[in-house]
Formats: sequence, C-alpha cells, structure tokens
Amino acid sequence: MADTIKREIHLALIHYPVYNKVGEVVTSSVTTLDIHDISRVARTYAVSSFCVVTPLKKQQQLVERLIEHWMTGYGAEYNPTRKEALLITRVMNNFTEMVRDLTEQYEKKPVIVATSAKKFPKSVSFQYLRKEIKREEPVLLLFGTGWGLEKSILTEADYVLDPVEGVGEYNHLPVRAAIAIILDRLVA
Amino acid sequence: MADTIKREIHLALIHYPVYNKVGEVVTSSVTTLDIHDISRVARTYAVSSFCVVTPLKKQQQLVERLIEHWMTGYGAEYNPTRKEALLITRVMNNFTEMVRDLTEQYEKKPVIVATSAKKFPKSVSFQYLRKEIKREEPVLLLFGTGWGLEKSILTEADYVLDPVEGVGEYNHLPVRAAIAIILDRLVA
Repeated sequence: MADTIKREIHLALIHYPVYNKVGEVVTSSVTTLDIHDISRVARTYAVSSFCVVTPLKKQQQLVERLIEHWMTGYGAEYNPTRKEALLITRVMNNFTEMVRDLTEQYEKKPVIVATSAKKFPKSVSFQYLRKEIKREEPVLLLFGTGWGLEKSILTEADYVLDPVEGVGEYNHLPVRAAIAIILDRLVA
Repeated sequence: MADTIKREIHLALIHYPVYNKVGEVVTSSVTTLDIHDISRVARTYAVSSFCVVTPLKKQQQLVERLIEHWMTGYGAEYNPTRKEALLITRVMNNFTEMVRDLTEQYEKKPVIVATSAKKFPKSVSFQYLRKEIKREEPVLLLFGTGWGLEKSILTEADYVLDPVEGVGEYNHLPVRAAIAIILDRLVA
C-alpha cells in the first residue's frame, strides 16, 4: 500500500507526565520491549522518528545503551532488522523539548496529536487525521504509558485522536498494540 | 464499532513448528508478555478464545501458572482488566489438538487461516477474509512465533492471509503488533 505521499510523522512515547492506576501523576518506567516493538512498528509505517520521553537520566541512559548495543558491534550483526528499526529511535527529556526540536527542524510547529482511551470534546476521527497527514504537515503523535497522558498534554495538543474501539466494551489495549493499530489506520 | 454479527474467531499462537533465524524448524519459548498483550487485544476484538500452543510441558505449566495468578487471589484484585483478558486464554499441545477441540465444539471444522509475512499462491486479502468472518463460520487464525509458521501448517490451512504491509520495504513486525493490526482490519 506504499504510495508517494511524503508523510512526516513523529511518534513520542511519554513516561512523564502520565497517570498511574489510582490517577496520580507519575513518571513511569521505560520498558525495553516497548522500545523494540514500537521501533519496528514505526519503521514499518515509515515514521520519521520515534522518541522515548523521560526526565530520568538513568532511564535515558538505559535507552541510549540499548540503541548503541543494537546499532554497533555484535547486536547489529546478529539482528540487522532490529538495527534498522532503531535508526529512527531517540531519547528526550520532555514533551516541550521534543516540540522545540521538531519546530527547529521544520521551521514550523508540528501538528500535535494526543491519543487517549477516552473521547474528548476536541477528539477527531481517524479519517479526519488521515486527511490532515496527507496535507504533508509534520505531525507529532503522543502516546502515554501507564494509565495515559496527563491532562495538561491533552490541553496543549492541537487534537486528541478518537480512542481505538474494538468490539464491545472492553478497552484496555497495551500501548504497543494501540500504536500499531493507530499507525495502520492512519497511514497504511 | 460494535455490531450484532456473531463472530466466532479463535486465535492460536504457535511455538512449534516454527522457523528460527536460520530456517531450522524449532520450538520457540513462550514469552509471558505475548500472553498478556495478545489476551488484551483478543478481548478487545471479542475473540472467542486465545490458545498458546506449545508441546513443552514446562512451558505449558508456566502459562497455566500465569493465568491462575491473574485469575485468582491478589492478581485478580490488583488488575481486574488483566483478569478479564485472560478469561479467554488457554494452553494446548499442538495445532491438531486445537483443531479437534474446535471441531467438537462446533460440530464442524473451523476455517483455518494461517498468517505469514510472505505472500503465497493461496493467500487471500483482508477484505475477502472479513466477508468470510461475516458468514459466521468459526475461524481459527494461526500466528507463528520466531521466524514464522512452518510450511506444513501453511499447507494444511484453508487460507493464508495476505501479509500486513506498511509503507515501504521494511516488514519485520513483532507478532504482538501483527495480531493487533490483523484483528483491527478483520473485525473493527
């Protein structure tokens, strides 16, 4: 389903500020499997960059070491498709830094789209965002770990994307699965 | 997007016979995260059962202990959405046992659909299979771990589903992501 539209989609996996199980704002832990899975999915859908966002230095170092391991030496040789996936992966301190970085890169602010398992007054449909992406504006898609993105991020975003609905009431997808489904709906 | 069609979709995650990196037929290891992720995704799309298929007794016990932990006592209380997801999860020795079990349940053989990252002469499109599912026949979707399902399973299946194509040439989705995307395309 490849086509010639030059999409510029950037993905951010946010570890702060997110909610925990009881609704407190916390910094969630980085999961290495998230990084591998989401890098592969992002690469499959020609995403321009995938950014792991955490303010914790130790966790940033963990991600950097992971990327380095698979990019160079034995890791790269053992698993070249993992290396290729990680080419687009990087780490940042916070959401603001990420937006500033993209704004410098494009000389304009990206369209910021938050995702959520709930619907909001400013939620937009997949179809709407699919068209927006085809206008070739740079788009930054934000995904929350833990129990989802804190409301300040939803407020700051230009759009909130409709939740992924399956069949019936159960709606507790792992973030890894939600990202795969959302990219498939938006760009495949 | 819920509707009133009574779908009967069953999922199997096959750990034998699958290929390894160098094309040998092996038994891959069960990954507990696969079980949690796929159970949640399956539950989201109203899949009737999710079966972890492995001939290794120790691995079967691992899966059974995991299910038991989250179904009863502390696990169930701590994380009820995980419990709900695991309600449809079970373990079987092999593919043949799984087919026999479903055949007994429905008093007819399910439509067996293998998945693969490659295209085959008997590959069918997502659209085709979506229609087949709406005919309300029981469908068994087979997913391979490692480097994919061994060819005897592809031969035995009624259909092979077209590979998930993203954008461009890179095509190395984790099985967890592929299952999420495939269910979304088939039943959402």
